[in-house]
Amino acid sequence: MPELPTDRIEQFLREHPGLPTPFLVIDLDVVAERYRMLCEALPRAAVYYAVKANPDPAVVRLLVDLRCDFDVASPAEVELCLDHGARADQLSYGNTVKKEADILRAAGRGVTTFALDCAQELHKLIRSAPGSVAMVRLAVDGAGADWPLSRKFGCGPQDALTLLRSAAAARHPVGIGFQVGSQQHDPDAWDAPLAQVAVLAEALAADGVRLTAVNLGGGLPSLHADPTPGLDRFLVGDAGLLRAEVVLTSRRDSDPGRRWVYLDVGMFSGLVETAEEAIRYRIRVPRRHGPTEPAVLAGPTCDSLDVLYERRPYPLPVDLRAGDRVDLLSTGAYTTSYSSVGFNGFEPLRAYHLPPSSPSPIGTGTIESLATSALTDGAAAPGS
Amino acid sequence: MPELPTDRIEQFLREHPGLPTPFLVIDLDVVAERYRMLCEALPRAAVYYAVKANPDPAVVRLLVDLRCDFDVASPAEVELCLDHGARADQLSYGNTVKKEADILRAAGRGVTTFALDCAQELHKLIRSAPGSVAMVRLAVDGAGADWPLSRKFGCGPQDALTLLRSAAAARHPVGIGFQVGSQQHDPDAWDAPLAQVAVLAEALAADGVRLTAVNLGGGLPSLHADPTPGLDRFLVGDAGLLRAEVVLTSRRDSDPGRRWVYLDVGMFSGLVETAEEAIRYRIRVPRRHGPTEPAVLAGPTCDSLDVLYERRPYPLPVDLRAGDRVDLLSTGAYTTSYSSVGFNGFEPLRAYHLPPSSPSPIGTGTIESLATSALTDGAAAPGS
Repeated sequence: MPELPTDRIEQFLREHPGLPTPFLVIDLDVVAERYRMLCEALPRAAVYYAVKANPDPAVVRLLVDLRCDFDVASPAEVELCLDHGARADQLSYGNTVKKEADILRAAGRGVTTFALDCAQELHKLIRSAPGSVAMVRLAVDGAGADWPLSRKFGCGPQDALTLLRSAAAARHPVGIGFQVGSQQHDPDAWDAPLAQVAVLAEALAADGVRLTAVNLGGGLPSLHADPTPGLDRFLVGDAGLLRAEVVLTSRRDSDPGRRWVYLDVGMFSGLVETAEEAIRYRIRVPRRHGPTEPAVLAGPTCDSLDVLYERRPYPLPVDLRAGDRVDLLSTGAYTTSYSSVGFNGFEPLRAYHLPPSSPSPIGTGTIESLATSALTDGAAAPGS
Repeated sequence: MPELPTDRIEQFLREHPGLPTPFLVIDLDVVAERYRMLCEALPRAAVYYAVKANPDPAVVRLLVDLRCDFDVASPAEVELCLDHGARADQLSYGNTVKKEADILRAAGRGVTTFALDCAQELHKLIRSAPGSVAMVRLAVDGAGADWPLSRKFGCGPQDALTLLRSAAAARHPVGIGFQVGSQQHDPDAWDAPLAQVAVLAEALAADGVRLTAVNLGGGLPSLHADPTPGLDRFLVGDAGLLRAEVVLTSRRDSDPGRRWVYLDVGMFSGLVETAEEAIRYRIRVPRRHGPTEPAVLAGPTCDSLDVLYERRPYPLPVDLRAGDRVDLLSTGAYTTSYSSVGFNGFEPLRAYHLPPSSPSPIGTGTIESLATSALTDGAAAPGS
């Protein structure tokens, strides 16, 4: 596995020293390599790329070429994948909250797998996508994840069994999915929901119903500042580097003893995952190598929400100055797609893609410690 | 003052029953009327519209026609105002965090007023906008506001005095600004910072320096669900209605006893101000008039952050169903501008503008209880 950021990204940065910031660079070779590694580590699973993580056409096209499957959340994401060469049977509509018109539209385009977690959604499926695979989503408590997903989605095992039986009775193939949370640090987090799946599968088998798929969700952590044990892989996250610029550093008597550093990127231009300081990106400052001291880190807008790290200030060089370039690492996922349309007049985050090396875009990386339960954030991996 | 939503908005909704949701409708007559009312209530003040609240060209053009001034936060907002007929001397660059290149660019376009709160920013002004009005921003604790703005911006009176003296010594006219927070409910909130301004003005007078402007900030609350005493006006907020659709209602055994209602609009398509449940929009359901019960309200994306009201569930009709239309009131400010570029493939919030009535776009509203300290969110009002 090449070191990150890759030589190709470093070269891009060297060759474009004056490129206006902020911008993201994605090395598509990393995406290809990670995909290959996942496939090798999970030979019985299909890898579904969660398009919302980075819906850039270059990423989608690469993954189509590599025969990846796709987890989509809306009609626009369905169209995006189909437009770039995916087949409809490679798509899983993973959003449990869908307008019936959108189900009908997706089914009309050939999509055959839909997630759900309640009876109302199942009724929509029965009416508008008859015969499709009904993937029932289990609620998981998300403990151990930086970003738990516990309340909004999923049902308990009791409801799940009722839904699975109703779906099967209406001649829908059935599957079960769950999501252990984004940036999951605990490799055992998959065990409890898998045990629930086993119990449900057994109950269904007694009715003569067989599960067609188990969606293991995403959640594999990217390489952020908090050390993650073992599962340090990611499909698109580690492929990206976000270059920003320091706009201002200040100390003010209204906040005594604290240094504030304002970047030209923030909550409204892609760094939404710093909300509640959950994701702590690694940051490097290319030209300042002296001692560091803590700084509160904030974005450039007039909005008080636009603060990245305040509760746990970030160690940054003492001599950091306005105009210095700053790199946020492993930022290829959940950044460009979160950008606002232009809050405060700041434009959405630009992205540059380093094209896959040809003829073989896939590197020679080998699997070292990737456990069989290791999946990737920005990817969902249904498998039997 | 006409009732809200206005008859024109109601008529638009009646005439377009099948318009795809979510969308925002803005009645520009309300904006014009509110502007006139503010001017009457604050005859010695100039009203500065904070463009970030709603940067739609239709809004900017109307306010240019009415001779409103503008608070801008970025080069793009400078250009937007100039492109729609504003003169550069009507603009105040209110963001205390600016790249020096952006100051230079704005100064080159004729902008002559810039906010700051620290020495580094003053040095940029001295170098790149010599002779411009230096508006020093005081930190205010924001108590009483739904959305305090206390930490990110502003300095204390000690730093302020040093900055004002340095700016005056460098031949910059000087002013002082502050911001009592968004949705400020306490009409006395302006008193303490104004007292600080008076002390600073006296100290400067002893040096022979006169304040050219005091920026009283915004913060006037819009008509949201929590009752606001007296200061119930707003420039663009109350002019807008956001129509959404129920995508799903569910009860799940993973969250026993609670009803979840999912709308087709959420945190990533314009409702960022519900973050931490700070702003509680009034909601009406046009066709359901029976009893209500609480519901957790969430947006349509696969993101667990996309929940609007969970700590304090919202009373909604018991018989609410997928497909029902739901209107969020007083949503004309800080909605479209916050939309993501398309997270989860959901497009940015669309907006429709009901054009100003001609020949006189301004209604016959009279001022009843608008105190002299009453300013508007989405507006900053410098005055002597």
